[in-house]
Amino acid sequence: MAPLTPRLVVPIDVKKQPWEQKVPLHNRWHPDIPPVADVTEGELFRVEMVDWSGGRVRDDNSADDLKFMDFTIAHYLSGPLRIVDSEGVPASPGDLLEVEICNLGPLPGDEWGYTAILERENGGGFLTDHFPSARKAIWYFEGIYAYSPQIPGVRFPGITHPGVVGTAPSVELLNIWNEREKRLSETSPETIKLCEVLHQRPLVPLPTPDNCLLGKVQEGTAEWHKIANEAARTIAGRENGGNCDIKNLSRGSKVYLPVFVEGANLSTGDMHFSQGDGEISLCGAIEMSGFLELKCEIIRGGMKEYLTPVGPTPLHVSPIFEIGPVEPRFSEWLVFEGISVDESGKQHFLDASVAYKRAVLNAIEYLSKFGYSKEQVYLLLSCCPCEGRISGIVDSPNAVTTLAIPTAIFDQNIKPKHMNGRPLGGPQLKRLPDLLSCSNDGHLPATQDKSGTSAP
Amino acid sequence: MAPLTPRLVVPIDVKKQPWEQKVPLHNRWHPDIPPVADVTEGELFRVEMVDWSGGRVRDDNSADDLKFMDFTIAHYLSGPLRIVDSEGVPASPGDLLEVEICNLGPLPGDEWGYTAILERENGGGFLTDHFPSARKAIWYFEGIYAYSPQIPGVRFPGITHPGVVGTAPSVELLNIWNEREKRLSETSPETIKLCEVLHQRPLVPLPTPDNCLLGKVQEGTAEWHKIANEAARTIAGRENGGNCDIKNLSRGSKVYLPVFVEGANLSTGDMHFSQGDGEISLCGAIEMSGFLELKCEIIRGGMKEYLTPVGPTPLHVSPIFEIGPVEPRFSEWLVFEGISVDESGKQHFLDASVAYKRAVLNAIEYLSKFGYSKEQVYLLLSCCPCEGRISGIVDSPNAVTTLAIPTAIFDQNIKPKHMNGRPLGGPQLKRLPDLLSCSNDGHLPATQDKSGTSAP
Amino acid sequence: MAPLTPRLVVPIDVKKQPWEQKVPLHNRWHPDIPPVADVTEGELFRVEMVDWSGGRVRDDNSADDLKFMDFTIAHYLSGPLRIVDSEGVPASPGDLLEVEICNLGPLPGDEWGYTAILERENGGGFLTDHFPSARKAIWYFEGIYAYSPQIPGVRFPGITHPGVVGTAPSVELLNIWNEREKRLSETSPETIKLCEVLHQRPLVPLPTPDNCLLGKVQEGTAEWHKIANEAARTIAGRENGGNCDIKNLSRGSKVYLPVFVEGANLSTGDMHFSQGDGEISLCGAIEMSGFLELKCEIIRGGMKEYLTPVGPTPLHVSPIFEIGPVEPRFSEWLVFEGISVDESGKQHFLDASVAYKRAVLNAIEYLSKFGYSKEQVYLLLSCCPCEGRISGIVDSPNAVTTLAIPTAIFDQNIKPKHMNGRPLGGPQLKRLPDLLSCSNDGHLPATQDKSGTSAP
Amino acid sequence: MAPLTPRLVVPIDVKKQPWEQKVPLHNRWHPDIPPVADVTEGELFRVEMVDWSGGRVRDDNSADDLKFMDFTIAHYLSGPLRIVDSEGVPASPGDLLEVEICNLGPLPGDEWGYTAILERENGGGFLTDHFPSARKAIWYFEGIYAYSPQIPGVRFPGITHPGVVGTAPSVELLNIWNEREKRLSETSPETIKLCEVLHQRPLVPLPTPDNCLLGKVQEGTAEWHKIANEAARTIAGRENGGNCDIKNLSRGSKVYLPVFVEGANLSTGDMHFSQGDGEISLCGAIEMSGFLELKCEIIRGGMKEYLTPVGPTPLHVSPIFEIGPVEPRFSEWLVFEGISVDESGKQHFLDASVAYKRAVLNAIEYLSKFGYSKEQVYLLLSCCPCEGRISGIVDSPNAVTTLAIPTAIFDQNIKPKHMNGRPLGGPQLKRLPDLLSCSNDGHLPATQDKSGTSAP
Repeated sequence: MAPLTPRLVVPIDVKKQPWEQKVPLHNRWHPDIPPVADVTEGELFRVEMVDWSGGRVRDDNSADDLKFMDFTIAHYLSGPLRIVDSEGVPASPGDLLEVEICNLGPLPGDEWGYTAILERENGGGFLTDHFPSARKAIWYFEGIYAYSPQIPGVRFPGITHPGVVGTAPSVELLNIWNEREKRLSETSPETIKLCEVLHQRPLVPLPTPDNCLLGKVQEGTAEWHKIANEAARTIAGRENGGNCDIKNLSRGSKVYLPVFVEGANLSTGDMHFSQGDGEISLCGAIEMSGFLELKCEIIRGGMKEYLTPVGPTPLHVSPIFEIGPVEPRFSEWLVFEGISVDESGKQHFLDASVAYKRAVLNAIEYLSKFGYSKEQVYLLLSCCPCEGRISGIVDSPNAVTTLAIPTAIFDQNIKPKHMNGRPLGGPQLKRLPDLLSCSNDGHLPATQDKSGTSAP
Repeated sequence: MAPLTPRLVVPIDVKKQPWEQKVPLHNRWHPDIPPVADVTEGELFRVEMVDWSGGRVRDDNSADDLKFMDFTIAHYLSGPLRIVDSEGVPASPGDLLEVEICNLGPLPGDEWGYTAILERENGGGFLTDHFPSARKAIWYFEGIYAYSPQIPGVRFPGITHPGVVGTAPSVELLNIWNEREKRLSETSPETIKLCEVLHQRPLVPLPTPDNCLLGKVQEGTAEWHKIANEAARTIAGRENGGNCDIKNLSRGSKVYLPVFVEGANLSTGDMHFSQGDGEISLCGAIEMSGFLELKCEIIRGGMKEYLTPVGPTPLHVSPIFEIGPVEPRFSEWLVFEGISVDESGKQHFLDASVAYKRAVLNAIEYLSKFGYSKEQVYLLLSCCPCEGRISGIVDSPNAVTTLAIPTAIFDQNIKPKHMNGRPLGGPQLKRLPDLLSCSNDGHLPATQDKSGTSAP
Repeated sequence: MAPLTPRLVVPIDVKKQPWEQKVPLHNRWHPDIPPVADVTEGELFRVEMVDWSGGRVRDDNSADDLKFMDFTIAHYLSGPLRIVDSEGVPASPGDLLEVEICNLGPLPGDEWGYTAILERENGGGFLTDHFPSARKAIWYFEGIYAYSPQIPGVRFPGITHPGVVGTAPSVELLNIWNEREKRLSETSPETIKLCEVLHQRPLVPLPTPDNCLLGKVQEGTAEWHKIANEAARTIAGRENGGNCDIKNLSRGSKVYLPVFVEGANLSTGDMHFSQGDGEISLCGAIEMSGFLELKCEIIRGGMKEYLTPVGPTPLHVSPIFEIGPVEPRFSEWLVFEGISVDESGKQHFLDASVAYKRAVLNAIEYLSKFGYSKEQVYLLLSCCPCEGRISGIVDSPNAVTTLAIPTAIFDQNIKPKHMNGRPLGGPQLKRLPDLLSCSNDGHLPATQDKSGTSAP
Repeated sequence: MAPLTPRLVVPIDVKKQPWEQKVPLHNRWHPDIPPVADVTEGELFRVEMVDWSGGRVRDDNSADDLKFMDFTIAHYLSGPLRIVDSEGVPASPGDLLEVEICNLGPLPGDEWGYTAILERENGGGFLTDHFPSARKAIWYFEGIYAYSPQIPGVRFPGITHPGVVGTAPSVELLNIWNEREKRLSETSPETIKLCEVLHQRPLVPLPTPDNCLLGKVQEGTAEWHKIANEAARTIAGRENGGNCDIKNLSRGSKVYLPVFVEGANLSTGDMHFSQGDGEISLCGAIEMSGFLELKCEIIRGGMKEYLTPVGPTPLHVSPIFEIGPVEPRFSEWLVFEGISVDESGKQHFLDASVAYKRAVLNAIEYLSKFGYSKEQVYLLLSCCPCEGRISGIVDSPNAVTTLAIPTAIFDQNIKPKHMNGRPLGGPQLKRLPDLLSCSNDGHLPATQDKSGTSAP
């Protein structure tokens, strides 16, 4: 007789603050954040998670909470979990940790989420130069489906996934991160070509003790101060996995994570009901609290066997994934293309980021003809199951990217010929509501430090 | 009673040279290349095409043909076709041309193709700094499947597509292209950030009369000289479609192309039996001769209605696509990830091109453990139906991309755990052959002009 | 602000008996079983359900519970629910009730199920003449996956669905059912051709007060006796939906049910974690307790508009379905064929039931070569996501059916060539365990009434 | 260097009669029909085929050709082919023949097909009691798509397949067929239960020399007479494969056929551009001429290893299939259900054929509300890629079947709610044309022999 339900390893009470949870949370990557629980290879266990903001974004009528959000809180994670084999021996540096996502979803009783445009001077996003003001959409879940009162005429099944899955870095790896990111932060944005086109700021969110939450490490202690000043921020995905935002990492998927510290110290968080490739508006998935049902297996010595480093050290590796078998099945896709010529008409050299920006802008222009505001489409493409592809990366000087949108998510037919002869905002889309805005829509003062590397 | 077979508009004899074909070919974009035939809206018609090189690459035992290829020949296209409506009125600038790909395939009697690594100093490719020597693999087709003696243990169904589908540019659009590309070519590569990581050269293939073929325009005439000096090269995809290399543009797909000149002047070519997203080795698809069965429809005034320009003029638009219903269906994918940290360990800012390079390198390292040379995997990932995604483009400083490979294309099980305990190059992969190399593998002299904008 | 979780309309405590539940259950179809709750059009609500047997089948080491099961208990259903529109007006006879299955699954804390072979003399099954003894397999769930200690080497994602979804019949419809079924029960089995080949008994489970549970109707009252003697058994699917066992009626599906009584009186039950087409071993799905999250809509007058009767009265209709978008995606299928020639070699005329029996027997013989007992395969084909098709029904004298099995559910490669040269029960399938049998495997006495129409 | 094109083994000239083809055709199964060519294991080869009628059905304006068709001509097959291994040793009885369908399609220049309702007294069909008059629809192909002037508003990609793939029977197997079918033909239809509901006649097409074509065997010789009187008709699918009409046997599929005679003697024919499960109108697929590109492999001793007989002799086996990877991908299906209660309201016992008839009738009634005649829908469901499933086969007394129709094949939205409030035959379906009928629609005289076992 097997256990009839997965063991609950990290419970969450969404009515409590992140620092009040029974099993303490954390929001940084560091080898010295101690594990909160042990998990045995082969065991099915359940981890619950707050949303990335720990409940600071509310189901209300304003985007104020996002406009003034302090991003040093990001992301509240559950864990770290220490993974041991059936004889109690923990995973060791050099092993590979196979994590199977057997199930996942929103927390019962908290079945809603949000997607937001962040203020240009506080967070930004892929198109922050086009859409600089904070906006918010609330999504409600009906089982596998999500709909939003702020984006009418759309309903879709989510490819639900955790934005963040990662193991703890070793000291050596953490140093590599801190050094290379510091070097970038010290670069003048003027010399970074992409900064002309991508206005996302800060360039790098560097370590800061502000709002640092370190699990079992008591705030204010010497240990806390040491860790808080060194620990990596969780915004970027890195060698340990982390905030990869891979939207297909859903039910039945597997992640093979490198192990850098004894026990692996697995952490998870940032649940997304759904996301589009790129998560373009930054707070762009349907963000929610949620649960994961996981099973781990330790592949001894697996890093060497499977993860050849690409870089100067053996730590320069990347996780591997397998995609699960129950993703939504769409048969019709409308595809927008972008080349690496920016909005000013300037030619860039094989730049896929610039090309993707064009593809997204093309899609926004197109869909806004069907009764939506451009901000609505920007948010929709951030969170619906659309696919962003690097189609051509060698045909100088143009990189070509594509953005494919499943037509079935719309109530109306959005294919080209069906718009002909119909008034915009036709009978099927009742186009009254728009996104939630702020109580005072004046912009934040421009950040002094244009590279934005200081904490806001 | 309908016609029982599509009307053959452009026939090809693969035993003849491109300039000897009955209906003349062309290899440049220019408004003054005259149409070779008329096609009526709604009519099903057939266009045959030589491979991009017009037969210069041979099914032989050496990569010499590619090492010394003169790329000013690229790409030999069929057309232009003048599209008229049922009353004989041609498509007009501002219309949208819907092109449905009803069927396509290799030319009967010529069922083979090739994939190649180009020499670093003559063509390059996405990983030319890693794989600088010319190599070649020949692929044979068995109906929907392709296999290569040079890449054993792999067989897969092709998502066959035309690499190039485009309309002729207007004079105004051609000028925009020539100006912006010239400006890039005049930039010092040192100031282009991506050039540190992407060694693809030349930065821009500029207009040149070398090897220019202009359809019905007689070589040597004044008109020929004028066009040859102005006409855009076909390497890059642009506003008119062109060499977009979108690998899913297969049977049943539709392309909505902007019309810039009277008649639309539709050209097609560069048939690919199969290609991976990115076409990373540049001559990276399974290149072949082939046919298209097409149906066109003119959407009058459709550019304004559907293609909002993103850029300084109304001509800064991009085509739209719909994907067809009969792509191969794969259920299992192994996914490799890359972040925007380059091979030297340097951190780049949200650079999807750098991140994709890392994802591809990770995949090459992994698959090379299963008995393949790295060059073999590089070619395989160029041409098999793998998917390249922009997964995260906002989590500073790392862009995250993924490369998903369908596991079913391999004879052996390439999933992580199945390699354990098996000797590499195990029983299923008979790992003797490798790619075709050159008779003399010494490298070409480094190009004098490092930007490579001069013709080689 | 929308409600954050579906309203729980019927709660279940699996530790209690069916007749002890807070909201009373029922196990018959009758217009006079009163609704237990109202549900409003558009509202998202949750119904919980016991397994069909109300907990009589246990996670233990014997098939005794099934051998001696009294099937007059089947199926314990939740409901009836009275569906009203937003103004409180109930659904009316002649309306169509759209029921969307937004989500469904096992009950938290009770994540297991079972599949069984029933004893020939007590229940039978499609192949009861081949496999006459009671057997049982227990399945444990790991999120979307199920595995069984009794059928090793197999793990698959479930297409979870309710076996029973139906509305209450009107008096007139109930009379039609009782009359036509009584007539069949009075037929001598010898004159029913299919009875030579299909030994499933009884021919018809007729109304009986034995074990009758009628919701809010108090047992022993005059009303109870009246209803109990008239009410239709729930074994068969009929005009009202009911026990249709359509395995694809999963997340995101819709059912359009005819409304025969005021309020529609919707009942659901018999949750299946997974089932193969045909549910061949009768207790053949992975039977479990579970929950449904539903949304209803009333289409006024919809029966007339959409459900043309095929039969002598306007009540001879059938429900319509739409399949949801998140079924597991399998790309490889091994397909077995059957023609309407029975095991004795006798030719039948276009008989799809006989042909399907052959297809199933062919599949069982084949798969039993891979280390399984035939009983194990019989159960596996009852509950795994295999597809049973009517391929040819007109080519006299042979009906042709096919049974397609997704190969990915097996740990080993079951395709023909891979068996060659490998010992049966090879390294991947550890072939020690078999199904659970009974403490005393002597058969039950043959039923006196061979048609089996009396209650056992 | 591999051959660049498959070897053409059987060429067809569609302008010639079946008996005038360069490589002679045949239309019976018999061990003594000599092979027309040898094929070597591993070789890619091409077989061309006439349509089943050998060109007797024409692209004209009447169904007369079908009304008066003599079905003793069916089916004109290409082959038999003698399969040998690389050393020239032919396949032997007991071997298994793996046939891979690498490609297939219509014959170039003959891209059209037809679907027909046959006259009740000459051929019949699954619903011949409902639709007794001959009707015809012509389909034209546009690459992967088919459309018919007689069934407007519908266009779909075909799952093209051969209706007939089979090996020659041995003498012993032929005797088994002839005996069991003769026995059925001698049964009084009154005693065959299904005959009350399925009016398809004759019960069995028995051997007849009428219109017999026997390949290289000269008509009129003693050998010809002997074979013609013994040879099995090709209408039914049997142990050798044959007319299985499995609609998913398309590009990339494999068939594993038992070998009964030396060389296997493989024959193919009856190409279908598309077919629905069941091929309900008998001449129900989109019938066409066509080609197959095949590859064979001999699995020595494979019958014993893979095909356990189910029946009295070792010859009572059935082929196995694998489905290919490039079927059209549909995401939305509307599903109709049928239970085993016939149109008169009579209850049948677990009869899947009766239940499927109900499901089909339900679908016809439903779709006829969208502007189609019932005959049009009957033909459409015969030939479009709809799926017929045996959903429940154990819930006495009702078998439950389902018929799933992909909604994307229609120009209009056929889902329930979209019909509301729209006039039938709305704007998208121009509902003028109907099927082709006969010049004189009076019925044929009723066949004297109601069992229909005599040749008509």
